[in-house]
Amino acid sequence: MIIRDRPDMIQLLTAMRGSIVPQILPPLLSVTVLAALIVAADRLTHWVPHLDSTAYTVFGIGLSLFLGFRNNAAYDRWWEARKLWGGLLADMRSLAREADTFIPDRAAHHRVLRLALDYLHAHRINLRRLPFPDHGPAAVFRDAPHPPCAALDALSAEVVRGHREGMIDGFGARALTTRLSQMAGQQAGCERIANSPLPYVYSLLIYRTTWLYCLLLPLALVQTTGWLTPLFTAVVAYMFLGLAEVTEELSHPFGQSQNGLPLDAICRAAEISLAPHLGEKAPEPLAPVGHYLS
Amino acid sequence: MIIRDRPDMIQLLTAMRGSIVPQILPPLLSVTVLAALIVAADRLTHWVPHLDSTAYTVFGIGLSLFLGFRNNAAYDRWWEARKLWGGLLADMRSLAREADTFIPDRAAHHRVLRLALDYLHAHRINLRRLPFPDHGPAAVFRDAPHPPCAALDALSAEVVRGHREGMIDGFGARALTTRLSQMAGQQAGCERIANSPLPYVYSLLIYRTTWLYCLLLPLALVQTTGWLTPLFTAVVAYMFLGLAEVTEELSHPFGQSQNGLPLDAICRAAEISLAPHLGEKAPEPLAPVGHYLS
Amino acid sequence: MIIRDRPDMIQLLTAMRGSIVPQILPPLLSVTVLAALIVAADRLTHWVPHLDSTAYTVFGIGLSLFLGFRNNAAYDRWWEARKLWGGLLADMRSLAREADTFIPDRAAHHRVLRLALDYLHAHRINLRRLPFPDHGPAAVFRDAPHPPCAALDALSAEVVRGHREGMIDGFGARALTTRLSQMAGQQAGCERIANSPLPYVYSLLIYRTTWLYCLLLPLALVQTTGWLTPLFTAVVAYMFLGLAEVTEELSHPFGQSQNGLPLDAICRAAEISLAPHLGEKAPEPLAPVGHYLS
Amino acid sequence: MIIRDRPDMIQLLTAMRGSIVPQILPPLLSVTVLAALIVAADRLTHWVPHLDSTAYTVFGIGLSLFLGFRNNAAYDRWWEARKLWGGLLADMRSLAREADTFIPDRAAHHRVLRLALDYLHAHRINLRRLPFPDHGPAAVFRDAPHPPCAALDALSAEVVRGHREGMIDGFGARALTTRLSQMAGQQAGCERIANSPLPYVYSLLIYRTTWLYCLLLPLALVQTTGWLTPLFTAVVAYMFLGLAEVTEELSHPFGQSQNGLPLDAICRAAEISLAPHLGEKAPEPLAPVGHYLS
Amino acid sequence: MIIRDRPDMIQLLTAMRGSIVPQILPPLLSVTVLAALIVAADRLTHWVPHLDSTAYTVFGIGLSLFLGFRNNAAYDRWWEARKLWGGLLADMRSLAREADTFIPDRAAHHRVLRLALDYLHAHRINLRRLPFPDHGPAAVFRDAPHPPCAALDALSAEVVRGHREGMIDGFGARALTTRLSQMAGQQAGCERIANSPLPYVYSLLIYRTTWLYCLLLPLALVQTTGWLTPLFTAVVAYMFLGLAEVTEELSHPFGQSQNGLPLDAICRAAEISLAPHLGEKAPEPLAPVGHYLS
Repeated sequence: MIIRDRPDMIQLLTAMRGSIVPQILPPLLSVTVLAALIVAADRLTHWVPHLDSTAYTVFGIGLSLFLGFRNNAAYDRWWEARKLWGGLLADMRSLAREADTFIPDRAAHHRVLRLALDYLHAHRINLRRLPFPDHGPAAVFRDAPHPPCAALDALSAEVVRGHREGMIDGFGARALTTRLSQMAGQQAGCERIANSPLPYVYSLLIYRTTWLYCLLLPLALVQTTGWLTPLFTAVVAYMFLGLAEVTEELSHPFGQSQNGLPLDAICRAAEISLAPHLGEKAPEPLAPVGHYLS
Repeated sequence: MIIRDRPDMIQLLTAMRGSIVPQILPPLLSVTVLAALIVAADRLTHWVPHLDSTAYTVFGIGLSLFLGFRNNAAYDRWWEARKLWGGLLADMRSLAREADTFIPDRAAHHRVLRLALDYLHAHRINLRRLPFPDHGPAAVFRDAPHPPCAALDALSAEVVRGHREGMIDGFGARALTTRLSQMAGQQAGCERIANSPLPYVYSLLIYRTTWLYCLLLPLALVQTTGWLTPLFTAVVAYMFLGLAEVTEELSHPFGQSQNGLPLDAICRAAEISLAPHLGEKAPEPLAPVGHYLS
Repeated sequence: MIIRDRPDMIQLLTAMRGSIVPQILPPLLSVTVLAALIVAADRLTHWVPHLDSTAYTVFGIGLSLFLGFRNNAAYDRWWEARKLWGGLLADMRSLAREADTFIPDRAAHHRVLRLALDYLHAHRINLRRLPFPDHGPAAVFRDAPHPPCAALDALSAEVVRGHREGMIDGFGARALTTRLSQMAGQQAGCERIANSPLPYVYSLLIYRTTWLYCLLLPLALVQTTGWLTPLFTAVVAYMFLGLAEVTEELSHPFGQSQNGLPLDAICRAAEISLAPHLGEKAPEPLAPVGHYLS
Repeated sequence: MIIRDRPDMIQLLTAMRGSIVPQILPPLLSVTVLAALIVAADRLTHWVPHLDSTAYTVFGIGLSLFLGFRNNAAYDRWWEARKLWGGLLADMRSLAREADTFIPDRAAHHRVLRLALDYLHAHRINLRRLPFPDHGPAAVFRDAPHPPCAALDALSAEVVRGHREGMIDGFGARALTTRLSQMAGQQAGCERIANSPLPYVYSLLIYRTTWLYCLLLPLALVQTTGWLTPLFTAVVAYMFLGLAEVTEELSHPFGQSQNGLPLDAICRAAEISLAPHLGEKAPEPLAPVGHYLS
Repeated sequence: MIIRDRPDMIQLLTAMRGSIVPQILPPLLSVTVLAALIVAADRLTHWVPHLDSTAYTVFGIGLSLFLGFRNNAAYDRWWEARKLWGGLLADMRSLAREADTFIPDRAAHHRVLRLALDYLHAHRINLRRLPFPDHGPAAVFRDAPHPPCAALDALSAEVVRGHREGMIDGFGARALTTRLSQMAGQQAGCERIANSPLPYVYSLLIYRTTWLYCLLLPLALVQTTGWLTPLFTAVVAYMFLGLAEVTEELSHPFGQSQNGLPLDAICRAAEISLAPHLGEKAPEPLAPVGHYLS
């Protein structure tokens, strides 16, 4: 995620870091050059058809309908993913407090919290489709068929053992299993977002119509707008192709793109919050590197 | 569900798999041919009325209102259905953990988890209105008036028996019945979506106005757009008829269409997650066949 | 509720069952005839003012804002009402399972389930403002000041008695009262929708502006569209008056109109689900009569 | 709240009760007269500038964006407030049933229900910023710093006393405190709506642009629309100023305006529902007076 | 937060307090002056290109799409933040009642409520990124790695101690830990909003296109609108730049800007509600200073 203050004048003119321009530069240039060629052809020949705006207005309404929908759907995915991870962070903290309350045995208590951190890292690695590390958190679950489930099962097994041995009473067992089921619900929500992209059919429909629109627009502008046609075409293409690209990134919120969620930083925040419960010194929060928080 | 990466240039030009074009090809061609005939008639005779754009603008605003609403409603149904199945998956995993905690008897524990898998398959088969199989999961409930309810009742009966026999204490009975009621709630949500289609009156209103719009559009374009009229008409028809078709598919999320939800894959994911609790080897996850995940 | 498959070509041309056309036929014809008279007057005299499209565009934007809002609000009411009844169905099933678990006495268990069915019917009859029957379900509560509350109170009294007599333990009392309070919440939600229509001021604002729009539209079209003016006016009136009428029906989801919810069928579904718990044979599900499910 | 059936033709022409017209009549007349003066000036002099529609279209899009947002936000506030009160009504009923179940002592049981009714009235009076009465419900809490909180604290104190004295067991204490906390949540939701109006900056932005729009509109219409300009300006002003006024009322749902919520009627409904639990005769439901339900 | 009644005529003309005008005055003037220069240049030379409205309409549709999205997203953030704080206020009150019920020891009871107030202040200070005070509420947690978590941990530790010592029974421990986990959830929600701004890429996209639009608009208006061009450009810039600025403020709801949430007032409301439980006199509610409630 890009962390920058609101753009000032200078940034509006120059910012590339965090901008969508670098990603859409090739098509943007193509469209602009094509528009310029059409204007030139119109000046030199009489073969370029001049279209009036009726068709484009209808076209534009349809296109804004598509892009508006896609933008809302992509942002909702991104924001829901963020909510789920915020909820997981709260669950980690509440789990630590409930473990304090209901698990009197220090060793079991520590194992539970360690497993919770393993779980969070396994969930992060699994969502990002990264290779599991050989060492460090979650490494022990690297060969499980579904590592986060395996970590949560191991955590649950600690609760089961404590309950069987009478160390955790009925209230505690109920509180802790309720917490685990809430975490499992949020985990399944993340996996739902990761495994169910926006329907592919929309992508085709939207990219195809956006491209057609940008390619046909010069025909509508050439007569009335003249040599400003390439400028207008570039601006419209910037808006529409830029939005299509942004929504592509936002709809995959667990990617490591500029607009991906800062899962590393959230895992670190959980480690900071659990440290006092483990009797350890809290690590430093992650800081953005070049405005980018991973 | 179609699983493909974001479309590149080649796919934008050629992709048919996952595209809506094959389904709407006949009307698309009809509309385009009609537009060409109108242009030809206009060139040969003087009987074709030329309309200006006022009427079409109003028409277009209304149409985009209808299509925008229908698109949002259909996508919400699809996404809500996906959420409910994601929630069921989380519930299956939580049920397994709660069964570990609160059902000490191994045989009863295994029966509960088996019944849970039966339930999930019965629910899937029931939603898709498939014939129940003679063998395999859920087969035993094939003759019940409502198979998923019967499976859940059987699961509940295990809990009742365990509670009566004192094997499951009050906390466990409460935890497990709460879990079952949550699953019943999500099941009822799915049945609500399956049994309550979008109001039929909208379909009539939208298809009728979309058709009228596409058929009348050439009259507005013919004078100013000439032989590009068929192209524009085809593009607009692609947008509007395509969207109407896509929303038709998305609003029936349990169908086995290209945009139906991958219920088979979700049931498999549940089997993978429950395997360790049953002491079995986890099966492989389902993979898409020809970009299609069933 | 109308249950029909997606409309095919024939239905698009002819379907009346489920269509909004019959309800809006009188105003539709009036508007069309008026448009024809205006065109005739324009051809015969020079007194008809010709208006350009600026005013209509603004007007149309405002109107689509109103209708879009009203459509969303009405559909949300309809869908929320459906969700609440779906939730009630799930609650009935869960109540039956919880009664199995926590009410060991068969007679009390049966009384509770019978009262639950009485409650559901009383709630349905109350929402639809029907007269209470002399016999059959819910008849015993016909003279109560608020029959569904009385039924739920009677059900609650069974739980109270069982708890006092020690037959239902603390866990059971908590589980059952929680279930009843959830049902009461969904009942209050339905009553909220039934008793709080969309603000009347919107209806006035929308109907008045829709009518003005349809009546003034011919003045904008007559010059450029000629004898196609009545056709366009009819289509626009069909869209706008039709939408206003549909939203009127949808915003009263408990009515027995074409778009009312199938409460009879949902009550029957609850009876089917509870039958095994009562040791009875399940009745048949309700089937649509002439595409209409009551 | 105005309770009227859907408007028929006569009402569309004449209804003032429930209409927004009386409130916006002065500005509506001003705008219409100004438009007439502009047309007259245009006919007599040549000093009135004629503007084309480009600027107005952009202006209109922005304005409909503002008004659409404000309308949705205001309606959401109104509907959320209604949901919260519907939830409170359900909570009152559930509290009565839970008191039946968990508070065996009749005197304590009655005190709890009476305090619940006091609470509801205190909450209503507090939200509407009415003076507290000397007698009747909630009068005893009139001097508390926050009367509804004081009533709920008194109710809670009854539960505390019963729990301390062993009359209410752990399950009952948990059930009742959970119910009270749910009521407190809904109370805080209502206070949030009452104390956090829509940001004032929006009101300025919207009223200023709406006024500018209505005042400048005649310049765009005068040339093409002539003496119909005042009519169109009046209709557009009716739409936009009317919507601004309606949203002002809806965004303050606890006011005693035409569109305020019928809090008196909901409190009465709670009294009707609690009467049987108190062994009293239920009062009559409140009926609308002149279509207005307070 | 600005607390003012609805604007009357005088305020519409003059209000600056609460208006967005002061913040956007420099760009507003620049745009207006530029528009005037363009008109002057057009009158004196023939070098100013005249553009027709087609390009601007498309541009305007795209821009309203962007601004509408951003406005909704920003307002949703603001309103969700307000909901979370309203929920925290309700939780504080419920915690006090649950402490009354389940913590019989007066000293422990008081410590819990004091820590709850410390927590709320620490959360407020942390969200606003203020320096922690040396004295007063929350000062004791100033050096913790995450002060609100530390305060909540200290509160939790009181519950743990009471539970270990047998003073708080299982029901109480469960009720209190559930309450704390709900508060932790709302705290994490606030931190999510504070730490996850709207994606920076949107800001760039929106500010860049808004600026381009305002700068290019005079070219479209100059020919038809003449010397009214600066006025129209100023109005459109006021709408679009004003909205961009408002959404900037609203999307940071914990800032101390004019549209920031009144966190001080909410903390005071919590103190008022908890005072009776602590046996203290309630302080006065905070009042707005110059229409501003901090």
